[in-house]
Formats: sequence, C-alpha cells, structure tokens
Amino acid sequence: MNKITINEAAAILREPGGFLILTHRRPDGDTLGSAAALCSALRRYGRAARLFPNDGVTAKYAAMVSPYMDESPAAENETVISVDIADTGLFPNGWNEPVRLAIDHHPSNSLFAQDTLLVPERAACGEIVMDLIKALCGDITSGEADLLYTALSTDCGCFQYSNTDAHAFRSAAQLLEAGADIQRLNKLLFRSSSPARLKLEGMIYSSLRSYRDNAVNIAIITRDMIASSGATEDDMDDIASLPGRVSGSRVSVTIKERTDGGSKISLRSTAAVDSSAICAVFGGGGHRMASGCEMSCPPEEAAGKILKEIERAMG
Amino acid sequence: MNKITINEAAAILREPGGFLILTHRRPDGDTLGSAAALCSALRRYGRAARLFPNDGVTAKYAAMVSPYMDESPAAENETVISVDIADTGLFPNGWNEPVRLAIDHHPSNSLFAQDTLLVPERAACGEIVMDLIKALCGDITSGEADLLYTALSTDCGCFQYSNTDAHAFRSAAQLLEAGADIQRLNKLLFRSSSPARLKLEGMIYSSLRSYRDNAVNIAIITRDMIASSGATEDDMDDIASLPGRVSGSRVSVTIKERTDGGSKISLRSTAAVDSSAICAVFGGGGHRMASGCEMSCPPEEAAGKILKEIERAMG
Repeated sequence: MNKITINEAAAILREPGGFLILTHRRPDGDTLGSAAALCSALRRYGRAARLFPNDGVTAKYAAMVSPYMDESPAAENETVISVDIADTGLFPNGWNEPVRLAIDHHPSNSLFAQDTLLVPERAACGEIVMDLIKALCGDITSGEADLLYTALSTDCGCFQYSNTDAHAFRSAAQLLEAGADIQRLNKLLFRSSSPARLKLEGMIYSSLRSYRDNAVNIAIITRDMIASSGATEDDMDDIASLPGRVSGSRVSVTIKERTDGGSKISLRSTAAVDSSAICAVFGGGGHRMASGCEMSCPPEEAAGKILKEIERAMG
Repeated sequence: MNKITINEAAAILREPGGFLILTHRRPDGDTLGSAAALCSALRRYGRAARLFPNDGVTAKYAAMVSPYMDESPAAENETVISVDIADTGLFPNGWNEPVRLAIDHHPSNSLFAQDTLLVPERAACGEIVMDLIKALCGDITSGEADLLYTALSTDCGCFQYSNTDAHAFRSAAQLLEAGADIQRLNKLLFRSSSPARLKLEGMIYSSLRSYRDNAVNIAIITRDMIASSGATEDDMDDIASLPGRVSGSRVSVTIKERTDGGSKISLRSTAAVDSSAICAVFGGGGHRMASGCEMSCPPEEAAGKILKEIERAMG
C-alpha cells in the first residue's frame, strides 16, 4: 500500500534470500524485458533470482527470457517482485500470493503490493528498472541493455507512439552506449512478421476501400481471409492500424468477421472526427480517436452502415 | 577547400548580406529539413535567406519547404551555402556556381566549397545544422525543431537504420523539448503511403515465395502489377526491403520486371551469406548484405536462376 523511492526499492533488493519476479498476463516486451534485466542484475549482485513461469510468452520473446524463466530452480524464502503489473487481475496464470515489491509505470496501479515503486511519467517500466539496476549494481551489462531496450522500444512503438518523450530518447542513448544491439533487436521486434501475417496484410491491402478522396478507408477481414492466410491470434497485432496507412486518411475502419458471421469493428480517426460518437450509434464506444463496436450483420453490410454514419459525422 | 569549425561557420552566417541555400539533387528529408531550418534561423537573425529551387521535391515535403523556397525573392550579394551535398555532381538542376560554405556529414565530401563544416560522425546533417543554429541564435524554435526532426528521423529511418547512435537519440530528445510535433511528423514521414503503394504491397505480399523454412524469400514485381496498382517511381521507396520482413529470413530477393521484359534483381542478406558474390555470378555486385544484378530473362526464369545460386551459397 506504500509508495517508495528508487533507493528504498534498491534496499529491498539488497536484502538476503532469493527473488521471484512476476510478469503480467499476456506478457509484452516491457514486462518481459524489464523482469529479465532485473533478474540478471540480481544474479550479478549475488542473489538467486528467477522469473515466475508465464504461459503467455510468444515466440518473439521466448529465447530472450528462457535463461531467466526455464532453467531457474526456486530458492528458499523468495522475495516476490512484480514488474509492469497494474493490478492483481493481471497476475500470470498460477499466481495468487501477496507481492512484496511492485515496480510499475501505470498511473492506474492499484497499490496491491506491500511496497510500490511507481513512476507514472515513464513511457516504459524498463526505464524505472534501468534506474534501479544502476542503484543496485552501478552499471548495466550489454545483455541487460538488450533486455531494457526491448522493454523501452516495444512500449513506445520504436519511438513512434505518443508516449515517446525526451526521457525515452535519452534512455535509448544510454542503452546503446551500454552495448544494446539495436540493429538485431529492431529487426526482431519491428521488422519481422510471420508469412501468414504478410499474406493476410496482402489480402487486406489488395481489398482496401477508399472514399472521399482517401479520407475514409475501410479494411474487411473475413473468416475466409484468415483461414486461407493461416493467420492466428498472434498475427493480429495492431492490425486495426493498417487502413490508416493511406496517405490523407482521416477515418479508418477495420471490420473483422466474427465466427458467428457478425462483425467486430475498430475505428481510428484524427482529432477532428469523434470516432466514439460514431460507434455509440451502434452501441459501442471508446476514445475520440480510437473506438469500437459490434454488429450482428456480416462485414459487407456493416461497412455500409458505418460508412453512412462516418459521412454524416464528417458533414 | 578549407575545413572549419561550428564557430567559424557561425561567423560566416553573421556576415552582412543575403543567403542562398542549396539542397541536393533528388532531395530527401535531411537536405530539405536542414536547409529550411537554417533558412528560418537566418531570417530570425535578421538576414534575407531563401532556398534555391529544387525540381525534385516530392509531395511529402512540399508544404514543409515552400515558405522557404517559393515565396522568397533573391537578395543582393547572396552568400551561397550548400547543405548535405557531398559533391558538385549532386548540385540541384540549374546550379553550377561556386559555393561559399558547405555543411555536410558525408565522409566522402569532396571539399568543393571555399569552406566546409564537415562532421562525418553525425547520422544526419540536421544534427550539425542544429548546433549551428544554436551557435547563431542561442535557441531553436518549434518550427525549426519540426524541420530538424524531419532531417534526423528520415536519415536514420526513424531510429532503425544502422547509423542510429546515442547522439541521434539525444538530438531527438532536444528537438522534442524544443517543441517538435513528432506525432504528426512520424505519421507523415513513416506511416503514410499512397493507395497505389499499398495495393502494390498487397500484391507483393500475396505472391511472396518462401523457401528453406522461410530463410529465403522472393518477391516478384511485374509490369502488370505496377500498372494495375497505379504505382509510380515515387511509390517504390525501400520496396526491396519487403520480402525480408518474413520472420527468419536470411536472404531476400526482389525481382522487378524491366520495361523490356528483362529482370532487375535486388538481394538483401544477413552477414552469414555474401549476397554480392551471388550477384557477381550474373555480372552484378554490391555489398555483402545488399547487392544487385540484371538478367535479360523474365522474372520467373530469373527467380529460378538466382534461387539456385542462393541454395549453392547457403550449402
């Protein structure tokens, strides 16, 4: 329930005994990279440390975290640390015990842990862990720099998301100087797609519909397209951003056919158009620039309905 | 012929009279952003300044540079400055006069100007211009920060190319603090494509061929694909990188059908495979990880031939 400083958190890491580190459910680069870097630093400091198993680790991150997750025997009297976990509902499968120290950057952190190191102004939790490792060990190894660059760059979309700030750029500079292999990591994290994902993208781009001088763009993803491309849930990352790539796009729509034949619709817009108001017409909602709704009709029909409301909203 | 320092270059900018700034042929974000930012700073300093017309400015950059290029009357006794130009052969169409001051980061700069401010270790020429503006005016305006962020981010591929170093990240941090609107610029520069380009990408991804467990990937771009997508030369930017997006790709090949029916081939590889040696078999060459060759046969036949040599090289 208690918020603490970097130095107070470092003092907890200096306590004797082993450490068990939790990552969040459906783990991303930030939770995994931060947790593995912290685990590496604790081992350098002479402590037994390991990551709690997480059954959601995807192929992209498997090799990166396996030295910290799979080969690690449990130590006695483990101090439990959570990394990038905002609430107990996000604990990894199989964990429901108390947490001694939470390290997090989510403003919504529910202070579920005994002590919480919360720095909500950081783009990535990895930046907080970087400061903590420096407080504990004085420096960062090149392996830890790789893990922390993974945390930072994935959470700010390789410096393209709106959370990217000057601190994030300066953290990247420090990690590069500490030996992070950003060439290899950028290729792995941002320029690698499964053949199925690329096939699906191919079908989406080939069938994109553009209206009003390319200001409105609609992508339809049918069950047939998913089946014939071989794409799985893992291949759907950020798929709703694709129609917005059209130059001059102000409203972009992605309609995914549900297994029952209905439609799941994502809207993205510039600030000039309130996409949540458009989705509200169909019982959905969200934010002004990113929202969603569902319709029981098939995608083609849903496209017509949503286009009509978009036209009305754009005047 | 003379290399000078930032302070010596700033002294030239403080001389009385107007300034004429040259950008290189087929201008990119670095030459245009750097030149326009310098022009803005010179005007703030009280000097008449303008960019020399460049007929190669593409749509992406037109609005950004037009206040400095189109509406600018010539001043008397203009001091000529070139920005990001490595040699006289890269002068913009219509220019063949001497240059007073060259500002550049290309190690190959031929020292064609009377004085040259050359900082070859910088990822972007924009970083040198940033220092020069600070020396001249003491600060950077938000408009100049936008122009310099354009210069920096395009020349290092939004922090993904191998020239990205700690200085580039720290420059980005400074530009963000000076007011650069990186959200708007990242969308314009890195996440906007013409509908024709997206259609062409769709066709390329849909017809991608993968071999050896996805380690070898071949994209074919026929004249039919270009015609039916409506893509122009402007839409071909970095197109040879697309087949390398397949996860696990070690050698990627892009074969473009020439207007005479022959094939133009680009090879990209990881360091483990010498792509220039493969292209040398067909009379081409290049670098170990990026090379090219041409064949008089049509793409399908060229694909078979190059695949055979790749298989041989990979053993």
